Amino acid sequence: MKLATFLPPGVDLPLAGEVRDDRIVAFSAQPAPDGVRHWLASGDRTPAAGPDWALADVSLLAPVPQPRAIFGIGLNYAAHAAESGREQPRRPIVFTKPPSASAPPSGPVRRPAIVQRLDYEAELAIVLGGGGEIAGFAVADDVSARDLQRSEPQWTRAKGADTFCPWGPWITTVDELPVAAAEDLRIRSWVNGEPRQDSRTSDLIFGCRALVDFIAETITLEPGDLILTGTPSGVGEHMHPPRLLADGDVVRIEIERLGAIEHTIA
Amino acid sequence: MKLATFLPPGVDLPLAGEVRDDRIVAFSAQPAPDGVRHWLASGDRTPAAGPDWALADVSLLAPVPQPRAIFGIGLNYAAHAAESGREQPRRPIVFTKPPSASAPPSGPVRRPAIVQRLDYEAELAIVLGGGGEIAGFAVADDVSARDLQRSEPQWTRAKGADTFCPWGPWITTVDELPVAAAEDLRIRSWVNGEPRQDSRTSDLIFGCRALVDFIAETITLEPGDLILTGTPSGVGEHMHPPRLLADGDVVRIEIERLGAIEHTIA
Repeated sequence: MKLATFLPPGVDLPLAGEVRDDRIVAFSAQPAPDGVRHWLASGDRTPAAGPDWALADVSLLAPVPQPRAIFGIGLNYAAHAAESGREQPRRPIVFTKPPSASAPPSGPVRRPAIVQRLDYEAELAIVLGGGGEIAGFAVADDVSARDLQRSEPQWTRAKGADTFCPWGPWITTVDELPVAAAEDLRIRSWVNGEPRQDSRTSDLIFGCRALVDFIAETITLEPGDLILTGTPSGVGEHMHPPRLLADGDVVRIEIERLGAIEHTIA
Repeated sequence: MKLATFLPPGVDLPLAGEVRDDRIVAFSAQPAPDGVRHWLASGDRTPAAGPDWALADVSLLAPVPQPRAIFGIGLNYAAHAAESGREQPRRPIVFTKPPSASAPPSGPVRRPAIVQRLDYEAELAIVLGGGGEIAGFAVADDVSARDLQRSEPQWTRAKGADTFCPWGPWITTVDELPVAAAEDLRIRSWVNGEPRQDSRTSDLIFGCRALVDFIAETITLEPGDLILTGTPSGVGEHMHPPRLLADGDVVRIEIERLGAIEHTIA
C-alpha cells in the first residue's frame, strides 16, 4: 500500500489517501492532516474507498506533514565514509531535524541567507508505525549546509533548517515492500538532470532494523517518526572540484519501487 | 504571569492555568492539553478567571507537555567549559531533544538500561512565544548520559532519551520577568540535599536573545519551543571523584524567581 497526504485540485485542506497506479484514492472525503499518521499507528491496511483523482491532478504534501521526530544517520555507506575521509563508524551516528524541516516531495528547499555551501543527500527513509515497528519506506533528501556542518560540532543548524527534509512522494508500506526488500534497492540522484549518486541500499553499513533498535535504546519511537538512513557516495561537496547547490537548481532522487522526489533550490 | 499545565485532584485531563501565590487558577474548566502553548502563541495575558485549587493539591505537568522542539546549548558557562577541559565555544553549540524527553517538573527521570553514567545539568530554559519572541522562562534539568555523550559524536541518544528533560514548575512570562532580569538570577542544584551547582545566569557566555537569533538563522522557532541555555560548573561527572546519579537519587534545581523542580531517578 502507498500512503500519501495530498491536496485535491482547488482544495486547501489535506486528505489522506492511497496511491494506486496513476490514481489517488482518499480514505475519506473529510480533511485529515494527521490521517496518514493515524493509519501508520493503527496498522489498518483496509484499502481506501473514498473519492479519487488522477495522481497528476493533486498536490502531494509530505506524507506525514510534520513528523514528531526526524532522525538522520551519518556516514552509513562505506563509500561515502571513504569520500568524506572518515573511518566507518563503529556505531550509528544519530542526529535530528525538527518537524519544520519536513517539506513536500516537490519542495522547494529554501537556502538560509547564512548558508553558502548547500548539498543534497539521497536517502532511504524508514517510517515508523505503532510499537516501534517499521511501517514503511520513502525517499528523502537529507539537505545539508556543509559550511555549518564543518564549523559547528553538533549538526542541528546544518541539517535541521526549515525545508531541509523534502520527502515522499508517498510511504510504501511493508505489506507491499518487506524490510529485506527495502534493503536491496537502487538509489540514485541527479542535479539539473546530471547523474550524481547511484548506489544500492544493500550497501548500508547499519541496516534498518539495527538503526531502529539503536535509537530505541534511549528514545521511544512513535508513529510517523522518520529515520533517514544515510547517503551513498557522490555528494556535491566531494566532487572534484566541489559542486554545491545554487538557487534554481533541481534535485531529483529516485529509489527503485519507492518512486521519486524532485525539488528546486529557492 | 506564571503559566502551568496541571491535573486537578482526581482528574485525568490537563487544564491550563495561572499560578498565583499558593493557588492555581484555570483559564477554563475545559480540558486543554495544548492550552499553555495556545496562550504563548497568542500573547494574551488576561488573568485566568476559571475554577481554582490550592497549588499543593494539583499535579503539575510539564508546562508544555510535548514541545515541538527542545534545543539545548553546550558549554555556555565559562567555568563549566573549563571544568570540562574545553575552550569556550566561539559560537553556540546547539543540540536537540525530542518531544518525548519532556517530563513533569517532579519527574521521574528514567535511566535507560544501557546508561551507566547519568548526570544532571541545572539550566535556565527559554520558552518561545509567537513570532520568534521570548515569551518566558522556566527551570530545566538537561539530563545527560555521559557514557553515550563520550562515545557518540552527535548527542541525540545521550541527551534525548525519554524523560531526560524534566522542566517547570511553570513558565514565568516576560511581563513579570523581563529578559534582562532573567539573565541575572541565582541558579542552584542539589543531589539528595547536597549542594552541587551554585552560579548566576549572568555568567552565560551567549545570552538569551543571542541564542534565539542564532538558532533562528536556519530554524523558525514556534510557540512552546524550548531552549535550554547550558549548565554552570558543578556537574557530577567533573567532581573528584565523579559522582554520577544512581537510581533513587533526588535532584533539585532552583532558579531565583522561577521556582524549583525536584525529581527522582528511576
